[in-house]
This record gives sequence, C-alpha cells and structure tokens, in this order.
Amino acid sequence: MPIAAVETGHYRVPLPVALSDSTHGTITHFEVVTVRVRDQAGAEGVGWTYTVGAGGGAVADLIGRHCAPLLLGQDADRIEALWQRLWWGLHYGGRGGQTSMAVSAIDIALWDLKARRLGVPLWRLLGGHDPQVPAYAGGIDLDFPLDRLLEQTEANLAKGFRAIKMKVGRPRLADDLARVKALRARLGPDMPLMVDANMRWTADQAIRAARAFRDHDVFWLEEPVIPDDVAGHARVLRDGGLPVAAGENLHTLWEFQQLIAAGGVSFPEPDATNCGGVTVWMKVAHLAEAANLPVTSHGAHELHVHLLAAVPNRSYLEAHGFGLDRFIARPFKVVDGLATAPEDPGHGVAFDWAALETLRAA
Amino acid sequence: MPIAAVETGHYRVPLPVALSDSTHGTITHFEVVTVRVRDQAGAEGVGWTYTVGAGGGAVADLIGRHCAPLLLGQDADRIEALWQRLWWGLHYGGRGGQTSMAVSAIDIALWDLKARRLGVPLWRLLGGHDPQVPAYAGGIDLDFPLDRLLEQTEANLAKGFRAIKMKVGRPRLADDLARVKALRARLGPDMPLMVDANMRWTADQAIRAARAFRDHDVFWLEEPVIPDDVAGHARVLRDGGLPVAAGENLHTLWEFQQLIAAGGVSFPEPDATNCGGVTVWMKVAHLAEAANLPVTSHGAHELHVHLLAAVPNRSYLEAHGFGLDRFIARPFKVVDGLATAPEDPGHGVAFDWAALETLRAA
Repeated sequence: MPIAAVETGHYRVPLPVALSDSTHGTITHFEVVTVRVRDQAGAEGVGWTYTVGAGGGAVADLIGRHCAPLLLGQDADRIEALWQRLWWGLHYGGRGGQTSMAVSAIDIALWDLKARRLGVPLWRLLGGHDPQVPAYAGGIDLDFPLDRLLEQTEANLAKGFRAIKMKVGRPRLADDLARVKALRARLGPDMPLMVDANMRWTADQAIRAARAFRDHDVFWLEEPVIPDDVAGHARVLRDGGLPVAAGENLHTLWEFQQLIAAGGVSFPEPDATNCGGVTVWMKVAHLAEAANLPVTSHGAHELHVHLLAAVPNRSYLEAHGFGLDRFIARPFKVVDGLATAPEDPGHGVAFDWAALETLRAA
Repeated sequence: MPIAAVETGHYRVPLPVALSDSTHGTITHFEVVTVRVRDQAGAEGVGWTYTVGAGGGAVADLIGRHCAPLLLGQDADRIEALWQRLWWGLHYGGRGGQTSMAVSAIDIALWDLKARRLGVPLWRLLGGHDPQVPAYAGGIDLDFPLDRLLEQTEANLAKGFRAIKMKVGRPRLADDLARVKALRARLGPDMPLMVDANMRWTADQAIRAARAFRDHDVFWLEEPVIPDDVAGHARVLRDGGLPVAAGENLHTLWEFQQLIAAGGVSFPEPDATNCGGVTVWMKVAHLAEAANLPVTSHGAHELHVHLLAAVPNRSYLEAHGFGLDRFIARPFKVVDGLATAPEDPGHGVAFDWAALETLRAA
C-alpha cells in the first residue's frame, strides 16, 4: 500500500523533576520527535525518537525535508527497502547521529503501521516469544542525596518493580560505593541492582569501580567508558569482573557487531529510537542471541516491551525516567516485577496529540 | 577573547554539470553550511561544511539552535575546550552524523579566527612543514562515457595536475578495467592514477577488482567497502594487493583509530569538514604518522592545502569536483602538479557572500 503522508512534530517536554547523570549534567527537558505515516487506505503508524534536550530540531528537519519525499508513494510494507532508501539517501554526513534518530522514528512508524494493518500486536508480529517481560526501574539520580535515592527506590518497589538501576560516577568512588551498599541493603540479596556510569570513566577507573562494586552483587555495570572505546569495554568486562551493559549511544548495527565481536559487552542495550528502529533493534537482538548474550533495552519502554517480548534472549526491560507516560493514553504498568506486552494492534502507544501540541518547539 | 557572535548560513549550490558515483547516483546540487564566528574585538573566523545534497538544514539547525548558545561569551582561543563543550552538549543522538559536521564547521572557523588574530596562515600555525603540496584531480565521473572521461583528464592535465583519480564500481568489472587501462595509457607509466569505488563492493568483490587493477599500477583503491566494515577493509588491503584509501565517511577520531589499528587503511583520508574540524584532522594525521602512514584529504581543497602543508607525512591533496571555487575570491591553482598553501592570515578563503546569498536554502 503506497505511503500517502508523512508528518513530523518536534516537542520540548519539561521533566516533572530535574534529573542528572555523570555526563549530561542536569536535564530539565527532553525532546520528542514524532512521525505519523499514513498509507493511501488511511491506516496510520506512529513512531518517535527522543533526546536529552538537544538535536531534535535537526532530526525533524531531516524527516520533513529529506525523508518524507523519499517515502511518499513507496510501498509501506517493504520496510527493509525503505530503510536502505533512507540510510543511503542521507548517508553522506549521516551514518549515525541525527540521521540514525530520523530513520529510527520512521522505521518504528512503519512497523506500527504494518502490525496495525495486520491487526496484530508488534510483539506477536516480530516473533512472539513471551509477553511477560521483567522490568527494572532506571533512576536518573546521580545527584540525589542518599535519602532521596532511597525514597525513589521505595516508590519504585511500591509500583511493582523488583529490580533497580542507579547512577554512579560521583567524583569520589567511595561515595558511589556507599550508595550501592545502602541500596543493596534495602533490596536484600535477591533483587537485581544495576549501576550506570554514563561513560564517565577511563577503562582503568571503571575496572577499579567494578572490582569495588562486585562485592555487592551488582547485576551489570552500564556504559563504563565512552561508546567509541571498544577495546576499553573489553578490558573492563574482562578485568573488572562484572557484566557490562552498553549500547544506548551506539547508532548502527555495525557498531553493535564490533562491540560484541570484541567481547566488550555482556548485555547489548539497543534503543530502537536511535539505533535504526525496530528493524535494527531486532537484528542486534539476533546478533546477541548468536553470541549467547541476553539483550536489554534503553528508554521508550512502551515500545521495547514488544521487542523484548518477541525474542527468546530477552533480559530486563528498562522503565525509563522520562515522563512520556503523561502523553500516552494507557499508562505503563509493572506487576510483581513484570511488564506485559499489550494485545492491541501495533505497538499500542496512542499519543495525546493535543497535550503534545502545547509543547511544540519553536 | 570572548565570542560575540555565531552566524550560520545554509546554501544549496547547483553543480555546473551533474556528477555521479557508485553510491550517491546523480548529484545535481551540493549544500554548503557556513559559520562565521566573531569575537568581541570584531575579528572573524569562517568555517564551513558541505553535503552531497541532503542534511545541511539539520547541520544549520544544530549550529543555530544549540552550538551558538554554547559558544557565546566563551574564550575563542580555547578551541579544545570548546570542542569538548560542543561534542558533549550534542552527544546524545549526536556522536557522528550531522553533529560531526556542525562541530567541524565551527572548529574550522575557530582555527581561522585564531590564525587571523595571530596574523599567520593556518599551515604555519599548525606546524609549517612544506607549503608545496602535490595535488590530484578527483573526478566524479562514473557515468561519463570513456571519451568524456578522457576529455576531463586532458582538461585536468592542462590545469597543471599530474595525478588523477577516477570513479570505479560500474556494474561490470570489465568496464571499470577498460577505463582504468585507457586512463593509464593516456597518463603513461609515471603519473599516479587513483580509483574510488565509493563503498559499492563487498570485501570479496573489492579484492577481485584490486587484483585486476594492480596490473595497471593503481596508486590506491578508495572506499572499497562501507566505512562500517573495518574487518573488510583489512581483508581488501591484505588480499587485494593495492593500497587502500578511506575516511571521507568516518566522522570521529576513534573511527580512524579503529581502522588504522585494524590494518584497514594505507592512506587515511580525513575531511576536516566532517571528521570534527581542523582539531580532529590534525590528530588523525598524527595517528597516521605514528602508524607510519601518509595522510591525504577529501574535498575542501582550499582548506586542506593548509593542513597537508602543516604535517610531515602528507600525501596528495584532493582537488574536489564540487565548484565552490565560484564563491571564493582567489581561485585555487595547481602548477606542475603542486598546490601552494597561501601566506595570508587564516585559511585565506574569502567567500563571496553576496553570490552565496542568492542560493540560500528555504
């Protein structure tokens, strides 16, 4: 069915409470860039990407100025062909960065459209492994004092989470360690506790931290070093003695391949909103399976619950700290540690367009 | 000296004649995105980047919306600090792609500003090895019939070039081979002849082609495979038996490091307009030197003549097929195969702003 319309929107969303991590500092807003693809029969698919506050205007510019003309009149079902068309149409100066985000948002919309036309939920269309997906609460809490970190944890346990991630990377490792100890004490010996350094460290700093954390049964150490340092990831994994999660800042299938092949990651963590969409996310999940690794996700939990439910090697779903829930009709729920992929057609994420409209970026 | 103003312009420039290569198809326009940085004393530096037709609007959006506010009031001389500020300010969803182009254009402007304030040409400021730089004419001529390819070559020889690059990657290797033979026959045994596949091949196809070309003394085989295929580059270099040039689509220092460390490139070919600016170009040149490799350039010959003149391991300068010359006060000249880095302060590229203004993108 030919594509009849491609619309994009760029919104700047204030966070209910300012968040912080070791690299991005204080985050007061995030951006959402949406894509609505309609075919000539009037069916619609919705996709989106998001940023931590910068770059969304460029993504919307790419979608509106270049991607829409490449898509109009094309067969919406041939997603792999459209993906190539977009990738190579934007390749020079693209090949990652904002181009990956633009392609991701469109690809998500195309998969949603396909699933809605077929009347099946995305997780069934993509493989249908198990709709029950263990979820963890991902805190963006590096600068929270300890009592506030513990309060946030209580709230997350009350919401049904049975696994928690906290930020690390404070100036003193002793501070990180005291916070990890306190959280482990609260969670008891059985609940997974992940830590996320947001690329702050050198490989050697990360190895030192990993060795300190491992006495407290840390489930994984996330983004110990910059995403570009493939060899560093491999050293941290091997010498630090903790599993390593990484991938939220990798923007192509090939970057994941290189990190996996180098032995630099235990939990590949693609984000469909920036790695190239559902299409690339699934390929990364299969790469991970072939390397006998679990796959996890980053952000956009409303979408990723489908993708993790589709594949046999799924690990935890991240329930992300950004409050997109306010703009989505059905709230995301976790019961006794599990999220459930819904049964409505597509990804089932229905945006409140009127509420978003009030936040449209200039 | 604090930065007082950052202005960007996005222009869409028609090519005098449509050009083609194996990946980008027919190219009728290119885009130029300019940056003018002025300090509080009124001194100005000029930078730019370019695309093969898509993405420039996004680059200008990043510069205007995010980079300018990060720069205003900052010390223009602390380029390394400003580079980090921009890179990390745009990192999420950046880390390459249009972000690399935005940072590149700004970094070029800052180096121009620094050199102009000091009253020295860029090539002297950056090292001052040798102002005489051998240059080759880079044709974008895959679809030219053979007679037109030979005419173009005559014209380039008449302009003073003593080295020529042609496109390869036609559907039949026999066609590429016949064209390489014809050009080699015209150039005689001593003039370098480079070939450029623009990422068209698999590693095995590239090895087959390299083995066919090497009987005709091809100087290098450029971009045999996609830039993401590091292992493929290494196989082509090792098994094809020709030197490999690559880098115009690598957008970070780390990507160059990985390709060099893997033994995947003989002639690293950074482009200061998309690899992160003068700052990253120089680091790549030094990486190459440390690996005992020559360095070449891609595009923007008016700027790269300075960078190649600065370093001891410089190879050929590419004189690029896009006609930016029309918008620059002093035309670029090659005499008996050599370009000369000029002696005016900065990079000495003075744009004809009034002429460019007529091409401003909507």
